[in-house]
Amino acid sequence: MKRFEELLNSYIDRLPESRVREAMRYSLMAGGKRIRPLLLYTVLKGYGIDETKGDAYASALEMIHTYSLIHDDLPAMDNDDLRRGRPTCHKQFDEATAILAGDGLLTYAFEIASEDTENASAALACTHILALMAGAGGMVLGQDLDMSEVSGTTDFEAVRKVHRYKTGCLLSAPLMMASVIAGHSEDTEKWHQLGEKLGLAFQIQDDVMDVKLTPEQFGKSTSDANNDKVTSVGLLGMDEAENMMNRLYKECMSESDTFSGFDSRALKELIESIRTRTK
Amino acid sequence: MKRFEELLNSYIDRLPESRVREAMRYSLMAGGKRIRPLLLYTVLKGYGIDETKGDAYASALEMIHTYSLIHDDLPAMDNDDLRRGRPTCHKQFDEATAILAGDGLLTYAFEIASEDTENASAALACTHILALMAGAGGMVLGQDLDMSEVSGTTDFEAVRKVHRYKTGCLLSAPLMMASVIAGHSEDTEKWHQLGEKLGLAFQIQDDVMDVKLTPEQFGKSTSDANNDKVTSVGLLGMDEAENMMNRLYKECMSESDTFSGFDSRALKELIESIRTRTK
Repeated sequence: MKRFEELLNSYIDRLPESRVREAMRYSLMAGGKRIRPLLLYTVLKGYGIDETKGDAYASALEMIHTYSLIHDDLPAMDNDDLRRGRPTCHKQFDEATAILAGDGLLTYAFEIASEDTENASAALACTHILALMAGAGGMVLGQDLDMSEVSGTTDFEAVRKVHRYKTGCLLSAPLMMASVIAGHSEDTEKWHQLGEKLGLAFQIQDDVMDVKLTPEQFGKSTSDANNDKVTSVGLLGMDEAENMMNRLYKECMSESDTFSGFDSRALKELIESIRTRTK
Repeated sequence: MKRFEELLNSYIDRLPESRVREAMRYSLMAGGKRIRPLLLYTVLKGYGIDETKGDAYASALEMIHTYSLIHDDLPAMDNDDLRRGRPTCHKQFDEATAILAGDGLLTYAFEIASEDTENASAALACTHILALMAGAGGMVLGQDLDMSEVSGTTDFEAVRKVHRYKTGCLLSAPLMMASVIAGHSEDTEKWHQLGEKLGLAFQIQDDVMDVKLTPEQFGKSTSDANNDKVTSVGLLGMDEAENMMNRLYKECMSESDTFSGFDSRALKELIESIRTRTK
């Protein structure tokens, strides 16, 4: 994905020089797993579409993911000092700059997503999906639920709801957008569902690794445990959490076989590599 | 503008119930002057276009303006307790909810702006303008400059640059978007310039009123003075600041006469009402 790293950096270069631009770059270029862009590129490939057609949307997705981490790490939220083994944005710069860097990345995502005037309908649809999945009916709602509703719950359904919005929506977005770019809007809602399932599996896995790995291996502070957050492992126990995770990943793979005109092999490989990730 | 207030509220109603939704509503419905929506509606009228065609974009603009106030008021930024005579969002709720409410309004603005699939080209262009003007090459850049570059400056050009981005860009956006909706994209760049001028006049006037009015009359804490921010009145003196403000407003009015197929009367009245506002 060297090409994608360079693409992200070149988008940042396009902005006027400023402190906030460098804070945006610092967090965006911190070497995440790029799972959302990978999902988008891989589904495009399955539909037989050249991956560069997804460049703007893949970049926008990673910017939105990064902004959510920056704001999530703030003292008023999870109060994390480390992210991907480096100081979090507000530690490296300051709180005000971190707030603005998040705002800047979120806004820039929509600037980039709305740029392709030659394919206005697809660009508009992708921009709309991005906003729907990231906003107060999507990821932002998940963040809010995470802070309010689940503290102290013993109900796994409440945790599942948080994961659905907080993680699932932004994993659904690349799948949905790829189907739009490929001209298969009839599949979009089905990809939405598959993404939510993938998000739940992914988040349970995060909880599992949070317990099993040391902070150094995991690359971030074990804030969820420190903050006494309710996790799927805490509620289900390790065995049942791992079972559920594996079952969900398996369902995602078999469901990816059910789209017509879609070659699922690369997507199944990607899901398998996510399932077996070690950090 | 009762219709517009109801419109804004109905957009918020559409979101799933949550604490963050109520924080978004609290700040959005706090009864601002709605200058950006008014500018958009008034320019549409000048072009002879039905104002309801601008509803989504007017709402999106007010959401972006409101998000910028919520984040600007945060302890890490201006640390304001009062806004429009009421507790600021983080005082009424808490800091984490205020951060999320800002994120939610910003994202929702783009959801709404990208909804009109029947006029995909115009919707895409308006969405793009909104992002350009609000982002790290626009308003967010202005916020960043405001915190970093101008502290302690004696150079009015530095202050002008802050105003251009921090205030001008989001006053340009409604003018630019209205020209796009009206099918007069050839005017968009000229409206951009006019909006920046209007923004400078507006911000100088804010500085003037900050000095002249008591906090109760002005409806917010006099944070800029308290925070030792450099203001145009501080740099130019009251007389020169007022002269410049009036000259700029006059230029905006005469320039609004130079668009072909555009009846400038309503816009000039609106600008005059802004010039003579008392809070």
